[in-house]
Amino acid sequence: MAKYTFGEIQGIREGDYFENRQALRAAGIHLATQAGIDGNKQVGASSIILNGGYVDDYDNGNEVLYTGHGGNDPNSKRQTSNQSWEARGNKALIVSEMHGLPVRVTRGAEHKSPYSPKKGYKYGGLFTVIDHFEEVGKDGFLICRYRLVKQPAENNTQLEDEQGAYNTVVEPAKRVPATVLRIVRDTKISRFIKEMYEYKCQVCDTRIDVLGVGYAEAAHIKPLGSPHNGSDSGDNVICLCPNHHVMLDKGAFSFDDDFNCIGIPGKLVVKDAHKILPANLSYHRECIFINK
Amino acid sequence: MAKYTFGEIQGIREGDYFENRQALRAAGIHLATQAGIDGNKQVGASSIILNGGYVDDYDNGNEVLYTGHGGNDPNSKRQTSNQSWEARGNKALIVSEMHGLPVRVTRGAEHKSPYSPKKGYKYGGLFTVIDHFEEVGKDGFLICRYRLVKQPAENNTQLEDEQGAYNTVVEPAKRVPATVLRIVRDTKISRFIKEMYEYKCQVCDTRIDVLGVGYAEAAHIKPLGSPHNGSDSGDNVICLCPNHHVMLDKGAFSFDDDFNCIGIPGKLVVKDAHKILPANLSYHRECIFINK
Repeated sequence: MAKYTFGEIQGIREGDYFENRQALRAAGIHLATQAGIDGNKQVGASSIILNGGYVDDYDNGNEVLYTGHGGNDPNSKRQTSNQSWEARGNKALIVSEMHGLPVRVTRGAEHKSPYSPKKGYKYGGLFTVIDHFEEVGKDGFLICRYRLVKQPAENNTQLEDEQGAYNTVVEPAKRVPATVLRIVRDTKISRFIKEMYEYKCQVCDTRIDVLGVGYAEAAHIKPLGSPHNGSDSGDNVICLCPNHHVMLDKGAFSFDDDFNCIGIPGKLVVKDAHKILPANLSYHRECIFINK
Repeated sequence: MAKYTFGEIQGIREGDYFENRQALRAAGIHLATQAGIDGNKQVGASSIILNGGYVDDYDNGNEVLYTGHGGNDPNSKRQTSNQSWEARGNKALIVSEMHGLPVRVTRGAEHKSPYSPKKGYKYGGLFTVIDHFEEVGKDGFLICRYRLVKQPAENNTQLEDEQGAYNTVVEPAKRVPATVLRIVRDTKISRFIKEMYEYKCQVCDTRIDVLGVGYAEAAHIKPLGSPHNGSDSGDNVICLCPNHHVMLDKGAFSFDDDFNCIGIPGKLVVKDAHKILPANLSYHRECIFINK
């Protein structure tokens, strides 16, 4: 079993250049010489390589949209079947997302981005998987997609996996531990919806209360931001407790058009004045819900 | 009843200078001419002024530690009684935190910081209240403290409160809606503790599950970061669901030394191998728990 190292590799710095995949392997950055995702379903993904991937992949330096593996013909590069969340590397990236593991990102010359090297490979630092969703590609088959954001340098950690069992960490001196960053910045509509439900979760009726002040979270059914471009409007926003918000965003459950929960028991309570767009529900079922 | 405007004031830009409190009032930035906190217990706090406040107040430009009002002698500036979370401005800042409202920050010449003007007042932009806690000041009385972080300019919103009832928003063109930012970056110890409990909440036994991969959050009993300086170690980390994590961080409940919950029913399940430091529990009870 391969021994995967999570986090920074001692002696390797962001921007370091490598001639080929063998050199990346020798440096300990990425062990597989073919696969784009290093890791497995147990320990998670320690490293990915961006190199001539899916045509819609996106990279602005600090945020990367990445496509999973499987289902494509190596010669034509066209999709010939669905990708699966259970495939080794795809599941490994889900583990990294759910467990908050650092993922090394390396860019190859075939990856179209201003951050790619002209030839060979350039190590791009540690990223966090913050999101996953599925799409129907232009060939009509499902593809697994992931969004990764770059970690601030102070948060870099090194976790070393010994025989797939445990992890040990070598922590750089100035590291600031960060586990879950949670910052609430409400918009008018999110506050309006939360007030409508008196800060009670529309799924489980939980209300978190501090000094009589309610706390709930405004969840977007069709996610904000590219490529979903869900809207920040009442037909797309619901009031949830943090637990059901995480579960909705990660695709642990969804809703049918009558607001029954799919994947978990229960039903979304919806007031008459709150008109939810069925298209947002179907988008969530098709693209976000993965506990199918 | 004062009419509070939340968010940016049209025509006012960060860095704008004002000669005195009357000028700030005329501009609509801060209506009270004496109080440091504008707002009330119903709508929240729309604005604060940093000007010669508590000696331990902290300001690095993007992060501000601010002290609530009450209990001090206006002449000697010494604390003569406890501050209260129920005092108008103090409660207003709790509402702003729980509801994710933008708070305008203005610095006066008396505020010791490189970001203060030499005289008069300088408007410093929109901040989000992310934290609150209480301390015993050097005079032996409780003080209410708040941590605010600056909002990225793209997230600025204007919410206008009409007669204390509703809020309307004027949204600048390039605004990117952000409601709850949640990014998980686990450290070795947080992952270790979460694995020990198989990603089940130590308070309610909930386990969030996506494709069989568990999601839980590592919560620090004594918070990380200044001024708490809790440690990222097993004696200070517990495995919680997002709901109980929010509740712990916001001070909705706490634990006694036998791990019984205080403020809510239930008990923290703790394995024999998991040694929690009683001093961390007592710190949480004294400084973080406010639903007393």
